[in-house]
Amino acid sequence: MNASSTPLRDQVRALGARALAASRTLATLSSEQKNAALLAAADRIERDAPAILDANAKDLAAADANGLTKAMKDRLRLDDARLAAVAGGIRQVAALTDPVGEIMDDWSRPNGIRIQQVRVPIGVIGIIYESRPNVTSDAAVLCLKTGNATILRGGKEAIHSNLAIAAALRAGFEAAGLPADAVQLIDNTDRETVRHMAEMDDYLDLIIPRGGAGLIETVVSLARMPVIKHYDGICHTYVHRDADTDMAVALTVDAKTQKPGVCNALETLLVDATIAADFLPMVAQALRERGVELRGCPRTRELLPDATPATDADWRAEYLDLILAVRVVDDLAAAVEHINTYGSRHSDCIVTRDAAAAERFLAEVDSAAVFWNTSTRFSDGEEFGFGAEIGISTDKLHARGPMGLRELTSYKYLVRGDGQTKA
Amino acid sequence: MNASSTPLRDQVRALGARALAASRTLATLSSEQKNAALLAAADRIERDAPAILDANAKDLAAADANGLTKAMKDRLRLDDARLAAVAGGIRQVAALTDPVGEIMDDWSRPNGIRIQQVRVPIGVIGIIYESRPNVTSDAAVLCLKTGNATILRGGKEAIHSNLAIAAALRAGFEAAGLPADAVQLIDNTDRETVRHMAEMDDYLDLIIPRGGAGLIETVVSLARMPVIKHYDGICHTYVHRDADTDMAVALTVDAKTQKPGVCNALETLLVDATIAADFLPMVAQALRERGVELRGCPRTRELLPDATPATDADWRAEYLDLILAVRVVDDLAAAVEHINTYGSRHSDCIVTRDAAAAERFLAEVDSAAVFWNTSTRFSDGEEFGFGAEIGISTDKLHARGPMGLRELTSYKYLVRGDGQTKA
Repeated sequence: MNASSTPLRDQVRALGARALAASRTLATLSSEQKNAALLAAADRIERDAPAILDANAKDLAAADANGLTKAMKDRLRLDDARLAAVAGGIRQVAALTDPVGEIMDDWSRPNGIRIQQVRVPIGVIGIIYESRPNVTSDAAVLCLKTGNATILRGGKEAIHSNLAIAAALRAGFEAAGLPADAVQLIDNTDRETVRHMAEMDDYLDLIIPRGGAGLIETVVSLARMPVIKHYDGICHTYVHRDADTDMAVALTVDAKTQKPGVCNALETLLVDATIAADFLPMVAQALRERGVELRGCPRTRELLPDATPATDADWRAEYLDLILAVRVVDDLAAAVEHINTYGSRHSDCIVTRDAAAAERFLAEVDSAAVFWNTSTRFSDGEEFGFGAEIGISTDKLHARGPMGLRELTSYKYLVRGDGQTKA
Repeated sequence: MNASSTPLRDQVRALGARALAASRTLATLSSEQKNAALLAAADRIERDAPAILDANAKDLAAADANGLTKAMKDRLRLDDARLAAVAGGIRQVAALTDPVGEIMDDWSRPNGIRIQQVRVPIGVIGIIYESRPNVTSDAAVLCLKTGNATILRGGKEAIHSNLAIAAALRAGFEAAGLPADAVQLIDNTDRETVRHMAEMDDYLDLIIPRGGAGLIETVVSLARMPVIKHYDGICHTYVHRDADTDMAVALTVDAKTQKPGVCNALETLLVDATIAADFLPMVAQALRERGVELRGCPRTRELLPDATPATDADWRAEYLDLILAVRVVDDLAAAVEHINTYGSRHSDCIVTRDAAAAERFLAEVDSAAVFWNTSTRFSDGEEFGFGAEIGISTDKLHARGPMGLRELTSYKYLVRGDGQTKA
């Protein structure tokens, strides 16, 4: 700890001490006890709906003064249907299988000691997020399910909503006999609270920033503990020379337009030079019918003169919009090189009928999820069948790609003997 | 990247770019290709022994000027036997099973997509270490076996030895057709090189500091990428009221004295109040026969008046020496509380014949490895049967406890379909 004591720092550290104490209790609970607490919390969210909606009304009343856009106000707004979805989400998490306690490995050594690797909670997890108040519940509930205590730090624009939701969760957990401090929300949105959390590695085992690049950069540069990042999704689809072109059009259209504002949406289309003259006009027509703007390399523009010229910035762009960068590449090696150079190691796809080419692409593309003949939109915890998702990690350590409950756990080794000594 | 360009920073970043390029090649190699390269490197270490010993002689000649102690000079010194051990170690690693390519999970979804979770290399790993030149080979070889490229930054006092060993490894790898840049050693020991490595998260996926608390603190505070730390081992043995006291004496003596200077050696003995009057004189005699100094709490000193009074600092001490802190505790709960408060989450043991008490201790102690009726000295990759060890992680994310080859890998998801779209 380099920082000197301030009242705000002391306040954040007091939350840390309480979270650590709560985490020791959570680690010893059965799945049944945790599930009962989740169901109690879901009931409490419904019972406290009037208070939560009153709090949300305060945030909405301050939204214009806080400079929120129409889209941000929509994300901030709660109503009976959205609160019912929050409670329903909690009940769904309660119904999932608890990974804690799983025996991951079990073996004996020649000297007779038996070693088990057992899945355990991580401990205390800090979650720093921006506007949406439902994250308060989503994140805390996934962490509770896996026996972790959380310290939440949401954005200023949702502070009343977040406090009301956190109070309901705490009341529900306490009613079920769990420590209320399993979930704590920092009631101060000063930016310095992020620094104090990031420096508190004696209490926080992990920090997860959920927000824009500025927030992630701040956390990465300050954090002393592990950070799991959910950075850009600059996703590619490569149409190989042996692609089924109808399938390639369908996968391109789906990945680009089915929900363009999400991280697993397509941002750059790579087209093998061999089939560019056939394929590009087909796909361009389908995309333009759906309002997609195309930005092409010079070879693309020879075939699609109406495309906007692409610059280097387009290869690095996460548009999250109806815009698609298009590049003609000589072969599979050039496609892999482009993806490994400009991509964000998130989710990338090859479309081909050639199994050997597909396997080479799967092996050589260095991304969390690599697809053959499917939409990149399947890079998602729900689509993977995880039942829940805390995010999609663009890191390579601990968790990579879609993160479910399992990725919110650690492990420890239990070693049983009958007096073995080393000497 | 906040830092502005300097010649040294540019030099370190150039190594990063070359390591990333090499890592792409390494990720696609078969186990046979990697093993052939390891064997070639072992041969080359033997062939280049005269040059390596000449280089080592330069470091030894500068040792007094560099302020090395006798113990440090011993760790620095290479000879034919030690070089033979280095080469033999490389051949042992070649013989181990390669974890890369393992299918960790494999399932299909109702829409027909098939998802595989496949073990892959991490990518580029930075290793920052202090005096011992054999770490140059040990670390690089374990990383190469798992398909990772390394950037090594060793201490000033061993720079000539490290450069000579790295040159031999590079020549061996290259002779086997691998990129020499699979291993690069920074030929500059300016402290700023550590900062430049720690900030280079566009090239380095992981950084592992191997050295004292000062080095680890520097890396943790600067690093933008994940760090796996090998911090203190403040290891405990708790003698429960139902312990076999002869076994408890044997386990205490072994854990404290068999090799006191290592991280899994015992530092604090906790004794149940119920049996303290019987057990403490027995264990004190056995320990004193081996020259162990005892530092006791007031209740310990009532029974062992010769023990030095222990202070709070003793509960937090990693002595790495023939000194043992001793505390009488009321019960198992008090033992767990002491360990979770003062320990370093490394390796802790209970001695008891009561299985229920043992299981409670195993569940409640929040440490990487928790032992029942064995010496804590078994907390070790070799003793666990991993065949090799890069360190013992005191972190809870990615890797916890003894780290073998598996802990030097990441994973990715391969998803195969036949045209599935989300819409």
